[in-house]
Amino acid sequence: MSQTEMPTARTRVVREPHRGAYDRETANRILDEGFVCHVGFVVDGQPYVIPTSYGRSGDDLYIHGSVASRLLRHLREGLPVCITVTLLDGLVLARSVFNHSMNYRSVVVLGKATLVDEPQEKLNALRILSEHILPGRWADARQPNERELKQTAVLRVPIEEFSAKVRTGPPIDDEEDYSFPTWAGVVPLELRAGEPIEDERLQARIALPEYALNYRRRV
Amino acid sequence: MSQTEMPTARTRVVREPHRGAYDRETANRILDEGFVCHVGFVVDGQPYVIPTSYGRSGDDLYIHGSVASRLLRHLREGLPVCITVTLLDGLVLARSVFNHSMNYRSVVVLGKATLVDEPQEKLNALRILSEHILPGRWADARQPNERELKQTAVLRVPIEEFSAKVRTGPPIDDEEDYSFPTWAGVVPLELRAGEPIEDERLQARIALPEYALNYRRRV
Repeated sequence: MSQTEMPTARTRVVREPHRGAYDRETANRILDEGFVCHVGFVVDGQPYVIPTSYGRSGDDLYIHGSVASRLLRHLREGLPVCITVTLLDGLVLARSVFNHSMNYRSVVVLGKATLVDEPQEKLNALRILSEHILPGRWADARQPNERELKQTAVLRVPIEEFSAKVRTGPPIDDEEDYSFPTWAGVVPLELRAGEPIEDERLQARIALPEYALNYRRRV
Repeated sequence: MSQTEMPTARTRVVREPHRGAYDRETANRILDEGFVCHVGFVVDGQPYVIPTSYGRSGDDLYIHGSVASRLLRHLREGLPVCITVTLLDGLVLARSVFNHSMNYRSVVVLGKATLVDEPQEKLNALRILSEHILPGRWADARQPNERELKQTAVLRVPIEEFSAKVRTGPPIDDEEDYSFPTWAGVVPLELRAGEPIEDERLQARIALPEYALNYRRRV
C-alpha cells in the first residue's frame, strides 16, 4: 500500500464525521506533540492495548521495548497493529448532559509493525525516540552499548493508513437549551511539567539542562 | 469467570514484572483518577484502539457513545475488548540512554463488553460516567430525555481479568554509570486544568461552579 487513498473504509471517522482529518500535516502535528501511544495488537482473538513511548521519522513511527515483552514477542512477525495517540485539551460543559464533550486531538494509525534489524537503523531509531521525547538528551547521556542494543527491540510502523480526529471550541447546545440556567464553557486541560527532582546521587556541579527545566510539548 | 485467579496468563506483567500489581484496590485507584481510556477491539483480524471516556461502578466499567460509532457497532455483540487506562507521572532521566524511563500508572482490563439495554441501568450508567468525570455536574445540567437516551449506547465491561503496572521514583542506573557527568532525575508530569473559559452565550448571573474552578483528578 504505497499510495493509500485517504480515508480508507477502515480509517474513516464514523462518529462525528466533521471532526475527521486525513491530511498528513494534521496527523504529524498531533504525533509530534504526543510521546505516549497506545498500541493495539491481537493474540488468539483477544485484543491487547499497551501504552508505550514512540518517535516519528518522516512517514514512520518507531516504538521499542525489551525483547521479552508480550507486545514485542508477538509483533515481530509483522502482525497488524493499531497505534493511537490522544491529546486531551479540555472538558466541554454543555447545558445538557447529552452535549457534554471533550476537546481532544487524536490520531489512529493502522499498519503492520516490523522489527528493525539493521544495527545502524536501530541505533538511529533509538536516537529518534529519545529526541522525540527530550530533544537534546541523547547527546548528554551515555549512549547505548552493544549489549543494551541487543536487549532492545525496535519496531517500525509506516504511517500510511491513518486518520486524525479533532474537537475544539465551546459547547454546542440544542437551541432550546441555551436558556437552561447552568454554567457552560470549557475547562482547559494540559499535560504540564513540574519542577525537576534531582537524583539523590547526582554529582556536584552538574547543572539542570534547559530541556528538563522548561519541559513543554506544545510547540 | 466469577472468581478469576490473578494474574491470569493473559494479564501477568511480562516486561519488568516487579512493576505488576494485581489487587483491586491499586487498579481502582488508577481507574478512578483517570477518565479517558483506550478501548481495543478486533474487526476482521485488525485491532482498533479508540480513546473514550469511562466511569466505574464497583467492579464494572461503563463506556458510552453514539450508536453509530464503529466501536459500538462491533462491541454490542459481546466482542472481546481490552480497556487500558494510563496516567503519566514523569520523565525519568537516567545517566544512560538505556535506563531512561517514565513514571506511570496503568491498568489493563480484558473482558467482554455487553450492551446495557435496561433503561434504568442505562440512565444510572450515564450518571456514573458523568459523575466520574465531573462530580456534581449531573445535578446541574439538563438531564437526558428519551430521544437522547435512545441515541446513546452504553456498554458494561466487568473488571474481572485485569492487571496494573506502576513505576515510581528516581532513575536506576547501572552502578558504573553513576559517575557519568550528566544531569539525572525526574521531570514530574501532571494533567492540569487551566482557567475555565466561559461560553459566549452564558446567561448573566450564573456563577462558575466549584467543580469547574478547581478541577483536579488526584484525590
